[in-house]
Amino acid sequence: MNFGLNGMDCQGTERNWEADWRADKPREECGVFGVRGSDLDVSRITYYGLYALQHRGQESAGIAVSDGDTIKLHKNMGLVPEVFKEHHLDSLTGCMAIGHVRYSTTGASLAINAQPLVFRYAKGMLAVAHNGNLTNARELRTALANTGSIFQSTIDTEVLVNLIARYCGNSIEEAIMKLMIDVKGSYSLVVMSEDKLIGVRDPYGNRPLCLGRLEEAYVIASETCALDTVGAEFIRDIEPGEIVVVDDRGITSIRAQNSKKRTCIFEYIYFARPDSVIDGYNVNWCRRQMGRQLAREYQVDVDLVMSVPDSGTAAAKGYAEERGLPFEDGLMKNRYIGRTFIQPSQSMREIAVRLKLNPIKSVVEGKRIVLVDDSIVRGTTSSKIVKMLRDAGAREIHLCISSPPVIGSCYYGIDTSDPEELIACKMTHEEIEGHIGVDSLHHLSREGLLNVFGEGRPGFCTACFDNDYPIEIPADLRKHALD
Amino acid sequence: MNFGLNGMDCQGTERNWEADWRADKPREECGVFGVRGSDLDVSRITYYGLYALQHRGQESAGIAVSDGDTIKLHKNMGLVPEVFKEHHLDSLTGCMAIGHVRYSTTGASLAINAQPLVFRYAKGMLAVAHNGNLTNARELRTALANTGSIFQSTIDTEVLVNLIARYCGNSIEEAIMKLMIDVKGSYSLVVMSEDKLIGVRDPYGNRPLCLGRLEEAYVIASETCALDTVGAEFIRDIEPGEIVVVDDRGITSIRAQNSKKRTCIFEYIYFARPDSVIDGYNVNWCRRQMGRQLAREYQVDVDLVMSVPDSGTAAAKGYAEERGLPFEDGLMKNRYIGRTFIQPSQSMREIAVRLKLNPIKSVVEGKRIVLVDDSIVRGTTSSKIVKMLRDAGAREIHLCISSPPVIGSCYYGIDTSDPEELIACKMTHEEIEGHIGVDSLHHLSREGLLNVFGEGRPGFCTACFDNDYPIEIPADLRKHALD
Amino acid sequence: MNFGLNGMDCQGTERNWEADWRADKPREECGVFGVRGSDLDVSRITYYGLYALQHRGQESAGIAVSDGDTIKLHKNMGLVPEVFKEHHLDSLTGCMAIGHVRYSTTGASLAINAQPLVFRYAKGMLAVAHNGNLTNARELRTALANTGSIFQSTIDTEVLVNLIARYCGNSIEEAIMKLMIDVKGSYSLVVMSEDKLIGVRDPYGNRPLCLGRLEEAYVIASETCALDTVGAEFIRDIEPGEIVVVDDRGITSIRAQNSKKRTCIFEYIYFARPDSVIDGYNVNWCRRQMGRQLAREYQVDVDLVMSVPDSGTAAAKGYAEERGLPFEDGLMKNRYIGRTFIQPSQSMREIAVRLKLNPIKSVVEGKRIVLVDDSIVRGTTSSKIVKMLRDAGAREIHLCISSPPVIGSCYYGIDTSDPEELIACKMTHEEIEGHIGVDSLHHLSREGLLNVFGEGRPGFCTACFDNDYPIEIPADLRKHALD
Amino acid sequence: MNFGLNGMDCQGTERNWEADWRADKPREECGVFGVRGSDLDVSRITYYGLYALQHRGQESAGIAVSDGDTIKLHKNMGLVPEVFKEHHLDSLTGCMAIGHVRYSTTGASLAINAQPLVFRYAKGMLAVAHNGNLTNARELRTALANTGSIFQSTIDTEVLVNLIARYCGNSIEEAIMKLMIDVKGSYSLVVMSEDKLIGVRDPYGNRPLCLGRLEEAYVIASETCALDTVGAEFIRDIEPGEIVVVDDRGITSIRAQNSKKRTCIFEYIYFARPDSVIDGYNVNWCRRQMGRQLAREYQVDVDLVMSVPDSGTAAAKGYAEERGLPFEDGLMKNRYIGRTFIQPSQSMREIAVRLKLNPIKSVVEGKRIVLVDDSIVRGTTSSKIVKMLRDAGAREIHLCISSPPVIGSCYYGIDTSDPEELIACKMTHEEIEGHIGVDSLHHLSREGLLNVFGEGRPGFCTACFDNDYPIEIPADLRKHALD
Repeated sequence: MNFGLNGMDCQGTERNWEADWRADKPREECGVFGVRGSDLDVSRITYYGLYALQHRGQESAGIAVSDGDTIKLHKNMGLVPEVFKEHHLDSLTGCMAIGHVRYSTTGASLAINAQPLVFRYAKGMLAVAHNGNLTNARELRTALANTGSIFQSTIDTEVLVNLIARYCGNSIEEAIMKLMIDVKGSYSLVVMSEDKLIGVRDPYGNRPLCLGRLEEAYVIASETCALDTVGAEFIRDIEPGEIVVVDDRGITSIRAQNSKKRTCIFEYIYFARPDSVIDGYNVNWCRRQMGRQLAREYQVDVDLVMSVPDSGTAAAKGYAEERGLPFEDGLMKNRYIGRTFIQPSQSMREIAVRLKLNPIKSVVEGKRIVLVDDSIVRGTTSSKIVKMLRDAGAREIHLCISSPPVIGSCYYGIDTSDPEELIACKMTHEEIEGHIGVDSLHHLSREGLLNVFGEGRPGFCTACFDNDYPIEIPADLRKHALD
Repeated sequence: MNFGLNGMDCQGTERNWEADWRADKPREECGVFGVRGSDLDVSRITYYGLYALQHRGQESAGIAVSDGDTIKLHKNMGLVPEVFKEHHLDSLTGCMAIGHVRYSTTGASLAINAQPLVFRYAKGMLAVAHNGNLTNARELRTALANTGSIFQSTIDTEVLVNLIARYCGNSIEEAIMKLMIDVKGSYSLVVMSEDKLIGVRDPYGNRPLCLGRLEEAYVIASETCALDTVGAEFIRDIEPGEIVVVDDRGITSIRAQNSKKRTCIFEYIYFARPDSVIDGYNVNWCRRQMGRQLAREYQVDVDLVMSVPDSGTAAAKGYAEERGLPFEDGLMKNRYIGRTFIQPSQSMREIAVRLKLNPIKSVVEGKRIVLVDDSIVRGTTSSKIVKMLRDAGAREIHLCISSPPVIGSCYYGIDTSDPEELIACKMTHEEIEGHIGVDSLHHLSREGLLNVFGEGRPGFCTACFDNDYPIEIPADLRKHALD
Repeated sequence: MNFGLNGMDCQGTERNWEADWRADKPREECGVFGVRGSDLDVSRITYYGLYALQHRGQESAGIAVSDGDTIKLHKNMGLVPEVFKEHHLDSLTGCMAIGHVRYSTTGASLAINAQPLVFRYAKGMLAVAHNGNLTNARELRTALANTGSIFQSTIDTEVLVNLIARYCGNSIEEAIMKLMIDVKGSYSLVVMSEDKLIGVRDPYGNRPLCLGRLEEAYVIASETCALDTVGAEFIRDIEPGEIVVVDDRGITSIRAQNSKKRTCIFEYIYFARPDSVIDGYNVNWCRRQMGRQLAREYQVDVDLVMSVPDSGTAAAKGYAEERGLPFEDGLMKNRYIGRTFIQPSQSMREIAVRLKLNPIKSVVEGKRIVLVDDSIVRGTTSSKIVKMLRDAGAREIHLCISSPPVIGSCYYGIDTSDPEELIACKMTHEEIEGHIGVDSLHHLSREGLLNVFGEGRPGFCTACFDNDYPIEIPADLRKHALD
Repeated sequence: MNFGLNGMDCQGTERNWEADWRADKPREECGVFGVRGSDLDVSRITYYGLYALQHRGQESAGIAVSDGDTIKLHKNMGLVPEVFKEHHLDSLTGCMAIGHVRYSTTGASLAINAQPLVFRYAKGMLAVAHNGNLTNARELRTALANTGSIFQSTIDTEVLVNLIARYCGNSIEEAIMKLMIDVKGSYSLVVMSEDKLIGVRDPYGNRPLCLGRLEEAYVIASETCALDTVGAEFIRDIEPGEIVVVDDRGITSIRAQNSKKRTCIFEYIYFARPDSVIDGYNVNWCRRQMGRQLAREYQVDVDLVMSVPDSGTAAAKGYAEERGLPFEDGLMKNRYIGRTFIQPSQSMREIAVRLKLNPIKSVVEGKRIVLVDDSIVRGTTSSKIVKMLRDAGAREIHLCISSPPVIGSCYYGIDTSDPEELIACKMTHEEIEGHIGVDSLHHLSREGLLNVFGEGRPGFCTACFDNDYPIEIPADLRKHALD
């Protein structure tokens, strides 16, 4: 079945360069936010919350607001400040709101796939925002279609929403409990009926979701940085398999029995904002520790440590500290680089990387360098950066990556490319060194990575490093490397 | 149940003045178009077809195209040339297309309510465009919701689409046949699966729908003017209760047994384009005959005949001809008046009408005038025009309306306002004359109107003139005048 | 010298179809408006005034407002309602305003060429809006440049403005008087200093300009239809060579001695709005008389009279009346056709005309027809319309033009194409008949045209019909037909 | 004289938040770029060059291109990628281009004030882009106006352009030489005639300007980062008082006799991009040295060093290194914060800072901190950041500023606010400490700052720190603190 449904708005023809750049990184797909509190300007609070979560999704944004009676919605393609103008927020008045920012992993990059989804069913209205990816969506979709459901988009969320409608006999909570039995995969949800705000985290807790308090109101968000931004106090992470219901009586928690924590470790390596705290670990601190661990695992005789800004900077500092080496700013980032600009023609191809990064000759020239980055997916950007540093006179370049080689695709809401595009699936270690053009290449070991989280650490999903998938992947979904 | 679902895009704050003006006329809500033919640029043909049908709906436009495999869609708020740019049409390639232009009668004026609706169901993909209004939509919606359906918009078309999905057992034709048993009301549909183009006209043939041939291809359109524009040859009107299926084998027709023609007579009076031919009658010719009939019914001693341009012009010419009176251009219309402009403030309120119409003093001054218009709904614009003519020196103004008084609301896809807003429901004939400020007021009689169509005329829906509704109106839907 | 200065905003790539259509008509370039009155919302009044003058220019629009101290401006490419939104008018507060709508004749179609021009000179600030064309602009521009002036646009108005700055010794009135000695060509100006509103009409009165009163305030406008729209009472036309100054003391008039009325006769034939009165003649009445005169000059045995709507309609009615023939609506115009739409590809070329006009077969079929239009410039559209009527079954088509053949270019502010593009310069009468495909072609005679205006008629510029240019054309400017 | 000329496009009502944030920093106003080379895509090169200079001006952008015959221009309000789309660059073809990015210091923030200015004068066409500020612009403007010049904008560049036109007798070079005698103030210019590209740096070299080579072509830019980005090789800085002419013969240099280097030292402290090299000093290196020097001047017993990112980060690292203290990321910056977003209402005021920066509690809590920033102008943002850190549990906060207190306004092209807004003019050192809420506050000494540049250092303008203005400031321009 081909869900090639095209959406409401076609995309312009300009290239999304930031997306190109990030194509060499795994791509997170979504951030969710919800707030319930009668005396607050809930649409503006959600707007600021989404602003803080912008790094989790830059293709579309949406806010739905309930006034206790009906639910209003505005969503569109674009960044949060592009999608929402003063008059949009002014018209979204109510006592409860949920919001969503999105990258496309499944579903094309189209307005009709933007979230939240707002719909009417037998019991009234409902709004749903989803971060994650269902592994049995296709199967559920077919089953629903065979009994009369229709689908207007290609996003998994529409499957969730139809299941809720089918299970709506007693209460929304019961419908969600039943839904959690049917669906496989990763999901952090915020759901809003006319009078309830509900947060749901899948039984593996694959994606983060946390709970906070803002005066008398409650806030649910993908990351704590959104709580901080709106001035909410962190209460706790929502647990794997937990349903948190916020209504007039306060907070009620429903917990699934067979939950088993498998949080995505890439949230710590790359996705989450450095100032967020997920399941008790500050993200920036973790990255610094990964750098320290990397230094313990691998020493090479160099003059200085540098990073690929900004994603490699925390680990680079950790590496430098651990080894007592100077950390230098050898690559300067253009802070004004936007998401879109006009692509250089073939003859100016090298400009593309230089627009974003510029090596500082006086730092780099004649030096032996440890260059730290967080991960390599395809390796295309890395080789351009290395060439740029060589041109600036670097004598030796030792690339240190603060995570293990990526050898498996993610099926839980991250776009890591197909195995045949993963450089670590296609080449040997030596071939990669040659391809990227470095004197040596080193990855943090899987054990070293886990050690960062200490003895009593929770379970993580490390499938992209070891192909050990905690949640079953149907055979038809599984991507294989070319043989 | 409150279907106050808010859509994808909020509307700007500027007033739609043309809509204000037309609020004093009944408002048609939709036009549909479809074309199937493998060697054609189907998206551009649909674009031009919609352009020709623009008078039937100016709030949103959409085109869906099938390439035999998948269906692509672009739709948005705005006029056809605002919604579609070159690159949209370039990306909508295929061998079959349907299109839609829309006013809002049911469903708010929002992007999410734009058509065609494109969706995936158990048998593949489908696109539907609908002109008309279901009278039992609420009931059907509830029944569907109670068995698990969800609704993402407030338009009747989503009900049709869910019914098709429920009845999809054998073929799309059978699903439509079953749907036609369930739904009450008016509907002219174009439906597109991956490989079939289907036209459907309700058993009363309430809204027009016709079939044409363009070389080897077939075209379905609300009015013949769209066939003419794209260069298609008119074949015939689609019959009340008929389903016309266009596929690789050519044309197949399925006919309902109990059809009974009740075409909306207002299509002839006001809605349809003058150059269209509906069920054998050229619209402009009909209007001229209505004017002639009016002249036979009522004579008053005047110096000249004028019209409220453009809607009253054909009838005014007929009136003048029949009585041998001069027809003069006494009101000039600003041809550049757009849909939107900045509303005059309270102190400049009179500018609003003068922006559109300007009386020619040299024609009007000192004259006794028959002023012809096609209809009066609320009477607000009429009284402004009459005042303007008085100010320009008109000695007597006799307002002749080429249709009977509107005393009933329409439930079949036209927005005629509620009964309490209909001037003919609220005031006596004399009160209306006084309110509008004319020396006399005359409406064409119902019999006179029907006589225009001759002896062997088909059946018409004249419910808005006589409250004789051919299609049952549920009690909860019926609008009553204030007592 | 090549003034190929490119402007602030490049134009989009979509074709301006209305412009294509009108390329077969002479094109007027500008409309001007001004109002001075302290208790009025002058920016909104100017907005509505420009709306009424939109037919005189559809490429750009602008409004400048003085608050007695400083002058604020907003202008851009587009129609009046596209250029001005509520917030623009809200920020343009003051006691005096001037406005401008523009086509491009000289100067490219660019934002930098939009008017009014607002500038600061030794005596303060000034705003100028200009309708017309200077014949010695090049010479004046060179002289000014040689003594240090710079030019940021390619419009004549910048020449006027520099001359005012050079002559600013005593008063603005004196500067204008001196300027009128230097400049040759046609110009109707509205000029606004911080405290004065000034209207200027060139000594030949080539372009119209009139004066009105709105309560205590005064209004100056290109046409009376703008006075009517804003509710102003017509006082009188501004005289050829007259400077009208409106300030706190009321109205002062300064008159040039050697003025000689030569109003552009094409204003009556085609440009001006039918409801306007120019120098005492109602435009629509004139057009009807042209049709009557045409009927007196030429009779052919036909069944009916039709027009090319809307420009030929008034004359067609006159023709029909004079000969006692029926006037029929045989060509229906799509009222929703906008300025821009997507151009048909080569294979659909015929759609372009059909989008705008559709012949009514029942009217046309088997008939001998007099088809009336106001003018032919290149003849391209005419031949398409004639072909369309033939295809609809017309038996004979006799094209009657309510003006003489256009054999000369205009140098006074109208774009009539170069002589080598004028069909009447390139072909004999018989060749044109053949080219357009009509059974016969007839033009109103020059004498017949003038007779419409009666015995005591004023002087007219009829140069495009007889090459008798009232205002000298420099040799280097003169366009010649190919030999 | 009030030059309150309003421009072509009014600004929207949304607040420019980045501007608010930067209002607490001095604001640089412009960046310039030029390239001449026949085989290059000069408009795209200029586009990328401006992209690299975006930090110097974010309000408007423009590119003018010469094809040897005429000059084309596109400019508008907005960031480089907002102003220029593919089709703009496609239409700007030629062999030479100049570009400009702008903040508004003099002249309102309006489209009409965008640069480059392109104009025609007696000798042809010219384009000019200007970084800097003239101190005698008002006087020159008056003198020019008194002899007939007009001004359509409020920018100094229009004065320069009129002077060139007045001096155009022999060559453009001579005109520029004369102009340099008349004008006072700071200016780095790129000038483009149909065939020459010219770079001009004022006799004090107040603003940077450098020269590079790109294959056979020459490039002129405000900073070397723009050379690096387009792949050009740095040749040398343009000297104070130098005119560099690039034409078919290559490079010619004309030098003023009485030049005296006084480069703005704030370029090193805050404005310039860290990867640029100005007059031999790498900017990032300088900032690190300022931090080291600060550490030598002031030691306080703390646990860690932090910066206000990003402007204070280089100096903070230098401080930490010099003292052997840990440098920690205690404030995380939202990398997706755009220029515009919806302003928080009064009740959410604190969100404004938290949207941009978030303190990391685990780093800050219970710690004694040296917080490094580059400068304080008004102190408003600083006090918000300090409060945020206190709320996060910081025990002691010692604010170290890597520049001396700002006590004087800049008249040379930087917006440093009026003296009465400068916190260092209004309060004593102790009062500022109290106002900002720090335990101690320290500024780098003026001598310490200069020492960074070593023994043989060039002259700098340090007027904002010591009121020693190298270029005369007319009395009427001088801003005084309230007494």
